[in-house]
Amino acid sequence: MTNTTLITNVRTADGARVDVSIAGGRIAAIGPGLAREPGVHIEDGADALLLPGFVEGHTHLDKTNWGLRWYRNEVGPKLTDRIENERRWRAQSGHDAGAQSLALARAFMEAGTTRLRTHVDIDTDAGLRHLEGVLATRHALRDVFDMQIVAFPQSGLLGRPGTDALLDGALAAGADVLGALDPALIDGDPVASLDLTFSLAQRHQKPIDIHLHEPGEVGAFTLGLLLDRVAALGMQGQVVVSHAFCLGALPERERDALLARLADLRVALLTTAPPSVAVPSLKACLEHGVTLFGGNDGIRDTWTPYGSPDMLERAMLIAMRNGLRRDDDLALAFDCVSSVAARACGFEAYGLQAGARADLVLVDADTLAHAIVARPPRKLVVANGRVVARDGALVQ
Amino acid sequence: MTNTTLITNVRTADGARVDVSIAGGRIAAIGPGLAREPGVHIEDGADALLLPGFVEGHTHLDKTNWGLRWYRNEVGPKLTDRIENERRWRAQSGHDAGAQSLALARAFMEAGTTRLRTHVDIDTDAGLRHLEGVLATRHALRDVFDMQIVAFPQSGLLGRPGTDALLDGALAAGADVLGALDPALIDGDPVASLDLTFSLAQRHQKPIDIHLHEPGEVGAFTLGLLLDRVAALGMQGQVVVSHAFCLGALPERERDALLARLADLRVALLTTAPPSVAVPSLKACLEHGVTLFGGNDGIRDTWTPYGSPDMLERAMLIAMRNGLRRDDDLALAFDCVSSVAARACGFEAYGLQAGARADLVLVDADTLAHAIVARPPRKLVVANGRVVARDGALVQ
Repeated sequence: MTNTTLITNVRTADGARVDVSIAGGRIAAIGPGLAREPGVHIEDGADALLLPGFVEGHTHLDKTNWGLRWYRNEVGPKLTDRIENERRWRAQSGHDAGAQSLALARAFMEAGTTRLRTHVDIDTDAGLRHLEGVLATRHALRDVFDMQIVAFPQSGLLGRPGTDALLDGALAAGADVLGALDPALIDGDPVASLDLTFSLAQRHQKPIDIHLHEPGEVGAFTLGLLLDRVAALGMQGQVVVSHAFCLGALPERERDALLARLADLRVALLTTAPPSVAVPSLKACLEHGVTLFGGNDGIRDTWTPYGSPDMLERAMLIAMRNGLRRDDDLALAFDCVSSVAARACGFEAYGLQAGARADLVLVDADTLAHAIVARPPRKLVVANGRVVARDGALVQ
Repeated sequence: MTNTTLITNVRTADGARVDVSIAGGRIAAIGPGLAREPGVHIEDGADALLLPGFVEGHTHLDKTNWGLRWYRNEVGPKLTDRIENERRWRAQSGHDAGAQSLALARAFMEAGTTRLRTHVDIDTDAGLRHLEGVLATRHALRDVFDMQIVAFPQSGLLGRPGTDALLDGALAAGADVLGALDPALIDGDPVASLDLTFSLAQRHQKPIDIHLHEPGEVGAFTLGLLLDRVAALGMQGQVVVSHAFCLGALPERERDALLARLADLRVALLTTAPPSVAVPSLKACLEHGVTLFGGNDGIRDTWTPYGSPDMLERAMLIAMRNGLRRDDDLALAFDCVSSVAARACGFEAYGLQAGARADLVLVDADTLAHAIVARPPRKLVVANGRVVARDGALVQ
């Protein structure tokens, strides 16, 4: 196969000046002074910083109001307030998960994200309607955007009979991962809830990604039950715990014992690094060999006004939340929305090496830390070998 | 005086559609359907959201590397590491506080800030050199930018003999406010340090703005000593405590007792709302009648890679740090970088009413909360009645 595109004159995060040749959607070669073969399309990188396409590890594309009139948030403070408010609002508004997920996925691409894991609401009101919308978005973008779908019981698993059958249907219909939610504090029965979740996952041979908001000691208790099941069922390397706020609040000795088990069972953690809630420490996770990666959670929906499809902003927030200031530490925050997220989610052929999928981002920035704090418009975004955005705007 | 500019067709944060007429640098009138007088310059607001010019309550213009090559942060974790590192770096780099403060002040204007309080380093190495640079910036921008200068002993007051004389000289040379730094943990003698600070302020009849990073109980102890002096010397309404991290970490009863004293003595608090440190709660301050306003702290300097001259971003970070999601709560975070900051710093004629200085910002946003989370480019910035920026770029 001939090389089809050559990106010239870019800098890697370690300061090397390189060209990148792309063929068949892959990086064919990366290094200084690559040959300009006849007929190849040249993109002048103009001394930009070269980064791998970003990875969003946890969002809710189906919930977003991105691009619509502003949603005025007048919601009460409890988790159940937010769940009930969303249910009411959907019934009134005719929310279209397909159109909305497409709008937000395109905004992610524009800002340099080429792989993404999204949790999609499955409940007895909506059935599989949200899943169908997001599956349509995935299909529409299949040539350039790598999307994993988590079948997520937003209203809980045990409280609404029939939810397990819907999750079963969602996994059969194309969801990649089984979701779950607060087995103790939402479902009220952590053993029954986890047992049902693990049996569903095992039946479909799918990984699990569970929302665990449960705080402190109750979260630690639930997490312990979950880890028991990972060990007993041999699901090492197939489970993600999203949020895991409890790990931010426990005494260090108890936290470290859980981190050691997480590392041993290769259970990864996902953080959005919210500034107002205790969160797992990035440095503590690294010290214990626990994989911690990053995501937005919802973006401009009935839950939250915040969030951005710009994963450089999420890297900045992760770094700020962890009190990181040194350039080498900011690079660790970037890993959370790039290589580590790809590894945790199982996105293949990721990175800036020959053979990897050609997912590339160019920005005008002196260094990686500069890119994170300045978040400049993306000069060029390449996804699966194609230019999908230029100067901050989609080209297709 | 005739009206010189009419901004038509804008929306206020409460949804009213208004025009704004400007004359002599002031808002002459604001309301629906104002008359288009002959000869008046018309700016079509095109349905933009109208906001008052933003207020930066605490930054360090003299320290910034804004616009220079990226500064690679390899600094150790302690406050004294950062102080010593900055001292070494300045000696090597020939840092120009005048040029740097001008570059950053212009970036603030571009993003809609028209009033700003900056702490300027005064120490026995630099003498008044930084002050002279920032005074030159203030002079250069005097027609459009309202700048308060705090004479700030970055290396402490007691440890380097001669610092008090330099602060005395700085206040005589044009500094508006006397700064101070951690009387216990940096100066080692909170009583002597505070007594010297208050006597200097009294001699010059200047207000005080003290950096108080001291955590928990030691910070509470120092804060108590400070409040004793405010009461004894009749300096109610003339003191700001910046950071006041201790108030984020104390037991509620102890915290509330201090908040009650702060309210009683009209001592205001400044927060940058860092995500990784305990901070005073915005809601608790409001409940106790304590003035809490917002600022960046340093921006891209040897201390920190973070910070932005966009005060909408700071409002977002304050809101996120306080766990605010509702639209009415996000408006409180905006107050911290607008009306409340103006009141706390003593910036006069502030606001969106006839007679106020015409400092205005237009953005394309549905609502105030939308503006805070989306931080769109500023369509128009008016400072002291003049258009200073358009479509995100300075016009002068």
